[in-house]
Amino acid sequence: MNVHVTNNGLEVGYDIPAAVGMKESEIQTPCLVLDLDALERNVKKMGDWAKEHGVRHRVHGKMHKSVDVARLQVDLGGACGVCCQKVSEAEVFARGGINDVLVSNQVRDPAKIDRLARIPKLGARTICCVDDAANAAELSAAAVRHGTEIECLVEIDCGAGRCGVTTAAAVVEIAQAIDAADRLKFAGIQAYQGAMQHMDNYEDRKAKIDIAVAMVKEAVDALKDVGLECDIVGGGGTGSYYFEGTSGVYNELQCGSYAFMDADYGRILDKDGKRIDQGEWENSLFLLTSVMSHAKADKAICDAGLKAQSVDSGLPFIFRRDDVKYVKCSDEHGVIEDPDGALEVNDKLRLVPGHCDPTCNVHDWYVGVRNGVVETLWPVSARGKAY
Amino acid sequence: MNVHVTNNGLEVGYDIPAAVGMKESEIQTPCLVLDLDALERNVKKMGDWAKEHGVRHRVHGKMHKSVDVARLQVDLGGACGVCCQKVSEAEVFARGGINDVLVSNQVRDPAKIDRLARIPKLGARTICCVDDAANAAELSAAAVRHGTEIECLVEIDCGAGRCGVTTAAAVVEIAQAIDAADRLKFAGIQAYQGAMQHMDNYEDRKAKIDIAVAMVKEAVDALKDVGLECDIVGGGGTGSYYFEGTSGVYNELQCGSYAFMDADYGRILDKDGKRIDQGEWENSLFLLTSVMSHAKADKAICDAGLKAQSVDSGLPFIFRRDDVKYVKCSDEHGVIEDPDGALEVNDKLRLVPGHCDPTCNVHDWYVGVRNGVVETLWPVSARGKAY
Repeated sequence: MNVHVTNNGLEVGYDIPAAVGMKESEIQTPCLVLDLDALERNVKKMGDWAKEHGVRHRVHGKMHKSVDVARLQVDLGGACGVCCQKVSEAEVFARGGINDVLVSNQVRDPAKIDRLARIPKLGARTICCVDDAANAAELSAAAVRHGTEIECLVEIDCGAGRCGVTTAAAVVEIAQAIDAADRLKFAGIQAYQGAMQHMDNYEDRKAKIDIAVAMVKEAVDALKDVGLECDIVGGGGTGSYYFEGTSGVYNELQCGSYAFMDADYGRILDKDGKRIDQGEWENSLFLLTSVMSHAKADKAICDAGLKAQSVDSGLPFIFRRDDVKYVKCSDEHGVIEDPDGALEVNDKLRLVPGHCDPTCNVHDWYVGVRNGVVETLWPVSARGKAY
Repeated sequence: MNVHVTNNGLEVGYDIPAAVGMKESEIQTPCLVLDLDALERNVKKMGDWAKEHGVRHRVHGKMHKSVDVARLQVDLGGACGVCCQKVSEAEVFARGGINDVLVSNQVRDPAKIDRLARIPKLGARTICCVDDAANAAELSAAAVRHGTEIECLVEIDCGAGRCGVTTAAAVVEIAQAIDAADRLKFAGIQAYQGAMQHMDNYEDRKAKIDIAVAMVKEAVDALKDVGLECDIVGGGGTGSYYFEGTSGVYNELQCGSYAFMDADYGRILDKDGKRIDQGEWENSLFLLTSVMSHAKADKAICDAGLKAQSVDSGLPFIFRRDDVKYVKCSDEHGVIEDPDGALEVNDKLRLVPGHCDPTCNVHDWYVGVRNGVVETLWPVSARGKAY
């Protein structure tokens, strides 16, 4: 819906996709919809798992970029805090009342370092990752300038092939630089194996995490040898948390996608060879779309294209419909095969996005639905926070 | 940079990536940068072409979603107006002073139809597309309700395989329904061949447009036979405008990407077999990124991943650098091969995005640069306007 207010005589419209109490069929599309029951079950289930296995869960806020979802994960899921990837995201979570925030990434730009060093003033424990000893001096100078403390994890590249060092000797060197720097605190290790999360086969994923665990254990032991203890040994995602969480080496998980699920993650198989979206986790995130043209008998055109989702990990699928199929995505349209002519103009469909993280990042709102009725609207609080 | 203001005691930060007068090297990344000289040359060149060939140019605002770029295209490029794909975008352009706006798409949802019918009150000629006679009654009822006029083009699917009808008889039937409806005005034909724009070969593209032109001509003639004249026969994109613009059938072009260029469009070949980004058009849009980690000697990690761009049409390339290559994109990172160790942490690179439209849609700002200095900041005015 379009809310009209007047700003100096100029009519200004806010695009709010729904109102509380509305039926799902009345929501303006394309729009992100959360099944609140399914979301709550996912959040509670992962929280219970972490508690049972004696590890902390620092939920990945970069997936949903929502203070409201993060609060649910803390309150209902017992999360110890949030991790995210950008300083600007960390500011949003800290301002939103999350009091333990890790930027699970390098912070090197001087302006960003300055912003990071001010986050403790918002009331949040502030942690970042380091993979270069030179960064310790930069972070320290900013923390000294603002009279704050930044905690630092040394990042190990345990297979993702992005940031991070690869030897225990390099970990120790950086950890000692952190430990020696004013207003920095060495807090442990960051070791997220991002490259294997989407491998279908359970045993293939396990083999990759076995390598990561061995690397991390070697680093933890080498740090102990020089008198440095790790408060945090963090990593683990939706495709691997049971490996890190039972490794005896990691003590903090960083799962994100489990809460919403998506088409690409849903395809991976659990230890019994079953898709993880068919038992382990529920789809709680949907991209609601409407049919906007059906000029060809066997083809419906819907209003969710590339501006409403990211297709980097493949196309969305249509939730619980076998009779129609989303087969093509262009800037503004989705093409749906409708061989039996089952769809009509203005029919709404729930799409399960290919990849939740970059899909959430293009939207301003989550519409929370329970039993077919809109219960709440949550802003995508850190949408577009890329700095 | 982060501008801090206080809102009821709560510190609020606005992410503004640059300030006027800053050097390009100081801009916060990842961020969209416009080379204003190159942009102005592109805009003027296309405007001159249309003028020379006696056709109007209705620029595609869905590409940039920026009132400021649209105004440049009107003022410097002689554009007759704007087209866009969503009612919410059309509102932004109309409120921004563009007084001739076409939603080159179907509008079927009742709330969206109601919003469309109110756009003329903002001072803009308002046009939309129709591919179903039943839609005429819906649009008419809303225009009557608001005492406005909506002009309608009948959309022909001339090869894109999305919305639109495929026979001259269907065009006539819908045009007559429009013509008969209160407060609607039949204005002509929409026939954009979106599926061929990215075919590399010039002759292959020409063959597809020859088919489209024949379809459109047949429809125009059939409309004439029943006494309906087309004020607008619109279509044509960056990969085809010279075909439609010299067809003698089309009288209005709808080019978008020519103004910014991107990696995917840049690859297509002109009639002499030369890439269109090597002479016909200049790259004026860049995704500025910074190196944030170089822990491995031959690999630099930059801060522009899937949250800062769409890779649906392939990866970005690094502008005017042959020594380094962007090879992999994950949520928050880009992996750059740097075999000679040419890059250092905090080095900035200009990426040419794979696909400009959905990339612009994830950003809040364009930073306009001339001679290496920030001259202006333009909001991505219709960012996220998906309704």
